[in-house]
Amino acid sequence: MSQSNQINAYAALEAGGTLQPYSYDVGELAADEVEIEVLHCGICHSDVSMIDNEWEISEYPLVGGHEVIGKVVATGSNVQNLEKGTVVGVGWHSGYCGHCHSCKNGDQNLCRDAQGTIVAHHGGFAEKLRADAASVVVIPEGIDLKSAGPLLCAGITVFNPLVQFDVKSTDKVAVIGIGGLGHIALQFLNAWGCEVTAFTSSESKRQEALELGAHKTLNSRDKEEIKSAYGSFDFILSTVNVKLDWNTYVNTLKAKGRLHFVGATLEPLDLGVFPLIGGQKSVSGSPVGSPATMESMLEFAKLHDIKPQIESYPMEQINEALDHMKSGKARYRVVLSNG
Amino acid sequence: MSQSNQINAYAALEAGGTLQPYSYDVGELAADEVEIEVLHCGICHSDVSMIDNEWEISEYPLVGGHEVIGKVVATGSNVQNLEKGTVVGVGWHSGYCGHCHSCKNGDQNLCRDAQGTIVAHHGGFAEKLRADAASVVVIPEGIDLKSAGPLLCAGITVFNPLVQFDVKSTDKVAVIGIGGLGHIALQFLNAWGCEVTAFTSSESKRQEALELGAHKTLNSRDKEEIKSAYGSFDFILSTVNVKLDWNTYVNTLKAKGRLHFVGATLEPLDLGVFPLIGGQKSVSGSPVGSPATMESMLEFAKLHDIKPQIESYPMEQINEALDHMKSGKARYRVVLSNG
Repeated sequence: MSQSNQINAYAALEAGGTLQPYSYDVGELAADEVEIEVLHCGICHSDVSMIDNEWEISEYPLVGGHEVIGKVVATGSNVQNLEKGTVVGVGWHSGYCGHCHSCKNGDQNLCRDAQGTIVAHHGGFAEKLRADAASVVVIPEGIDLKSAGPLLCAGITVFNPLVQFDVKSTDKVAVIGIGGLGHIALQFLNAWGCEVTAFTSSESKRQEALELGAHKTLNSRDKEEIKSAYGSFDFILSTVNVKLDWNTYVNTLKAKGRLHFVGATLEPLDLGVFPLIGGQKSVSGSPVGSPATMESMLEFAKLHDIKPQIESYPMEQINEALDHMKSGKARYRVVLSNG
Repeated sequence: MSQSNQINAYAALEAGGTLQPYSYDVGELAADEVEIEVLHCGICHSDVSMIDNEWEISEYPLVGGHEVIGKVVATGSNVQNLEKGTVVGVGWHSGYCGHCHSCKNGDQNLCRDAQGTIVAHHGGFAEKLRADAASVVVIPEGIDLKSAGPLLCAGITVFNPLVQFDVKSTDKVAVIGIGGLGHIALQFLNAWGCEVTAFTSSESKRQEALELGAHKTLNSRDKEEIKSAYGSFDFILSTVNVKLDWNTYVNTLKAKGRLHFVGATLEPLDLGVFPLIGGQKSVSGSPVGSPATMESMLEFAKLHDIKPQIESYPMEQINEALDHMKSGKARYRVVLSNG
């Protein structure tokens, strides 16, 4: 077994375990794969969920990390669009079936057999990782590489709905939850041309939200403040994973408005039907985005100088970095760097 | 007071009361109004809800009837587009504010100050009624007048979402509940070009659903039959007003599918968030439709020979007709005729 078939990574060996140095054998590079040297890798809440086996789909050893910025170091024999040295990104998915209706339709992120980077593969908390070339996006020159990782999961998750549901520049929009996802959403929506309101329960984040692109802020847990916004919004993006009074938020929508979930709450929504009918309102959700939409997002982020705000750790300090992220104090995303 | 200012109608004098002959004074015809001689008037479930004060907005005496086919007999001084003798229809609304964003945008049915025909006015269980000219639609020549009334409420309620949510001819669609609304929806969706599935709990309606335009039928209360349709539909139109297992229906949607409510259930929806996020699915509702959409619907119904299936009663037998409608045995809509 040659050295090039070994990848050094950090893995959870059991549910909730501290990450340990871990080497794994990747075998021969498949024809459609590329091997990527990890430069930077963001930490996402779903890395923690997977390490802790919250969704009961984790297999151990588990190498997290799916907000990868890296450099192509090897390409499979079929790979035409990427070459050694290309700076690329890998997000939640590292491969798609390629032949289902969703894949054919450019909705690879909805492919039922899409391979999760940290589910079916090993992720970017490592020196290297491998991914199917179809899932890898080229990072445009001029993008700040150190902070770009979170665009590949948090960023695309909040950008994709704007494309999918045709959010208009004249729309009045709101973001619920100003954290890893929400702080990027505020920047995208401001650049989109929208009037942007930030709902946050954290007084300390109000000023930061305004600096990130919100035109105003409201307290997400203050009924009176929410009521002052009844009938205001065309589109609300919820990034939180806690239960709020969703019917009250439906009331803040204008006629034809949409309440869209990218943060997954475990409790059912308890939605009244009459308000949906009376105002022709919609409630929906979506997961990450397709590779084509990721490319559009990266171009948009470059044009408008949109950057995740990050705190940086060396890869070796991964456990400290995870602890900091879990503390809820990170502003707003934690990124690990190699070398 | 001249005779022309008196309208003979049938009214409920108290919640749940039997309808009684009742005359009311309408005063001078307003500049924007028309007076319409009622030829036929459908009975809708919401007439019963209003007579019984189920929604606690009823005022008595209450004259129901909002699926009106009639002839213009007088026009106000501002009315340019209608003249005496024109055959017209009146639906759920008899007037709009005309100046809100929804009205300006052609979404008059979403106007918050829209006047309900049987809420702010007196309806079509009468010899005549009055309505704002902006809410009145001309019935195209060639439409069967006797059966057309239910198009103005039941019909537009199921037609409007196809327009609003851009249902495609290549979509696979389903209708839940084959009754007053559903039996018209099947006809519209078949003519739209869609593959149509009817969900019904009534074995006796299965064959009728096929004759109305469904390509197949499934039992709406049989979990196994519903499971056989997992991942099948782009669009589901629910016309029922009872609680079903909505999460199971969400599972029958394809990626990017929509579950749309035009039937109002009082119980909250209890929707899981993960299935919406995983499949980029939407849940929504809508009320009736705008006058412009009603015109499109009438042209479409004429072109495709789409007709509500009705049972007919003379206006004087209104209480028997109401009882028959309430029995649930009507196939599928009850229409009252004058003269």
